[in-house]
Amino acid sequence: MHLMRVPVDVPGAEYVVHVGEGALRYVGRIVPPPGPGQTAAVVADDTTAGLFGDPVVGALAEADWRPRLVAVRTGEASKTLETAACLYERLAEGGIDRGSAVFALGGGVVGDLAGFVAATYLRGVAFVPLPTTLLAQVDSSVGGKVGVDLPRAKNLVGAFHQPAAVVADPTTLRTLPRREVAAGMAEVVKHAAIADAALFCELEERAADVQALDMALLTRIVAGNCRIKASVVARDPLERGGLRATLNYGHTIGHALERAAASWSLLHGEAVALGMVAEAKAVARLGLTGSEVGERLAAFLAALGLPLSVPRGGVDLDAAQAALAVDKKIVRGGLTLPLVPRIGSVELRMDVPVAALAEELHGLLA
Amino acid sequence: MHLMRVPVDVPGAEYVVHVGEGALRYVGRIVPPPGPGQTAAVVADDTTAGLFGDPVVGALAEADWRPRLVAVRTGEASKTLETAACLYERLAEGGIDRGSAVFALGGGVVGDLAGFVAATYLRGVAFVPLPTTLLAQVDSSVGGKVGVDLPRAKNLVGAFHQPAAVVADPTTLRTLPRREVAAGMAEVVKHAAIADAALFCELEERAADVQALDMALLTRIVAGNCRIKASVVARDPLERGGLRATLNYGHTIGHALERAAASWSLLHGEAVALGMVAEAKAVARLGLTGSEVGERLAAFLAALGLPLSVPRGGVDLDAAQAALAVDKKIVRGGLTLPLVPRIGSVELRMDVPVAALAEELHGLLA
Repeated sequence: MHLMRVPVDVPGAEYVVHVGEGALRYVGRIVPPPGPGQTAAVVADDTTAGLFGDPVVGALAEADWRPRLVAVRTGEASKTLETAACLYERLAEGGIDRGSAVFALGGGVVGDLAGFVAATYLRGVAFVPLPTTLLAQVDSSVGGKVGVDLPRAKNLVGAFHQPAAVVADPTTLRTLPRREVAAGMAEVVKHAAIADAALFCELEERAADVQALDMALLTRIVAGNCRIKASVVARDPLERGGLRATLNYGHTIGHALERAAASWSLLHGEAVALGMVAEAKAVARLGLTGSEVGERLAAFLAALGLPLSVPRGGVDLDAAQAALAVDKKIVRGGLTLPLVPRIGSVELRMDVPVAALAEELHGLLA
Repeated sequence: MHLMRVPVDVPGAEYVVHVGEGALRYVGRIVPPPGPGQTAAVVADDTTAGLFGDPVVGALAEADWRPRLVAVRTGEASKTLETAACLYERLAEGGIDRGSAVFALGGGVVGDLAGFVAATYLRGVAFVPLPTTLLAQVDSSVGGKVGVDLPRAKNLVGAFHQPAAVVADPTTLRTLPRREVAAGMAEVVKHAAIADAALFCELEERAADVQALDMALLTRIVAGNCRIKASVVARDPLERGGLRATLNYGHTIGHALERAAASWSLLHGEAVALGMVAEAKAVARLGLTGSEVGERLAAFLAALGLPLSVPRGGVDLDAAQAALAVDKKIVRGGLTLPLVPRIGSVELRMDVPVAALAEELHGLLA
């Protein structure tokens, strides 16, 4: 099996993202235990436990890990302190000690939740994401952001806890609904838009191959995206310098939409796609950039099958505007917003009026 | 007002412990807000809110913080994920953002709980302990260990989150029961035993002045102890190198006793005092040290009014032995234990048989 290796050079916490077709069947060899018989807690959801639980547990046992599979209910509703409390109890029962590791087998919800538990159990044990969605493979599994939701808002509670390693197997993407692959592509488009004009152009041409799940292309996309994210994370691991905030392109409006999605179920990537287009329009309207970036983004995202508008009644616009007003990136009243002046480059503005974004929400209605 | 300043040079997270009589009345000037009107969440318990809430809130407001006092119920039972969840909600209501700070006004429970919340809210906001017990002033407020208890065990859930500053006002010790001051002295004795033979000798002579709350002496004790702890923490902030584990002297048996205290209410410092004496006896019996350290410790701790034995029935010995067996410092079966070959120095052994400690528990019965 051929593995691509992407190093993530966070000072004091270097690790490698391993990407390859079939990698999950070799996970124990790729990430060996620190000593024979060490406990590996494999946190999955009901879906991923059924699809990949047996091969992953087998591959870990083969390499002398002592695997313990723990499944939570599938879906965002599991990303809570209550579920974390249950997992702590399961870890304590399972005899997890400081030489153990927590593997997260699933998408963003499982990764964020299991990562938060790994960050806070015994003041931090080793964490190994095994992302099974495109979104998690190209984005959330790299960088150490972990957390749970509060009833009031997403991701208010969390930590930075860099993984010990990441193992991404693109063949898991075959099990995903087409809609979810498209949603994952939104983060790929984001990375290309802010950092890699050549990748953006290539992907514009190969949108059909992405949709057909061309494995060689997907492996390259995953590794390439992890490389883009790794270079940002390594230079700003704690999101202090502002550099890492550039990864939030499209996420300010995206998060507001997610919080306000009423009758319409909205995937994170879909929200980011809508957010990128709306944010691009807002900054163009403010005269901070031209309008062509937004137009090119919209055309490309549509070609990938992503929505460019919100069904009337699908999102509570008042709630979305209220969510914008309490965005955690607001420091002393000003909103920090990344913007793309041309494809492949990004700038951070510290002073964007929230009202300009709030206005753009109306434009998203179908 | 005269302040002693003890720098804690944790790489990337330097901070200062400010110690002085009446320091709480100047806390806003000692720790000014990053900008005017920034929110300061002051987490207290019902007791400390009543005793010190008004002056602290006043001192913060005077310095242009926007203080918000939040009180939890007094006692260890508040150190839970459930209370943390309530605090997150209160912080969200109070408009805490990344420029805000969480102040912890109280002893170890309030510090651990508020510190955990500060570590995990918005992936970490500034944390300022205002310790009001001797134990917290000389020990728990320095070093960044924060956490909550699970029903099954203490401190299994937590993080390392270094404070932005610590402000310790020894006059708060006047509000404490004599028993609690004595318990706090156990950690002082521990620091002196492992790191400062001269301090140990001085304190042996001045046990009566400590009990009389001589403020000049207490200020020096607090600052001196923070200096000892700071030098260890700065070299091993994440308890990885083993150095920091030397601070666990007396805590292995101490924690087991705390978990197994049945009808007898046991303060942490009392448990540590019992633990030091019992651990000293155990390692002497194993031939790893002589017996004089244990004898000198026992005499001094008794002079400070600390218990040297456990009332029959006060501790469930079977439960204490079971607690020893699941100690989180056991890695691959061996217990890591600090031992004091002579007063003022400490060594770390990685291979102490748990059984030797378990046996010593019987010797603690009155």
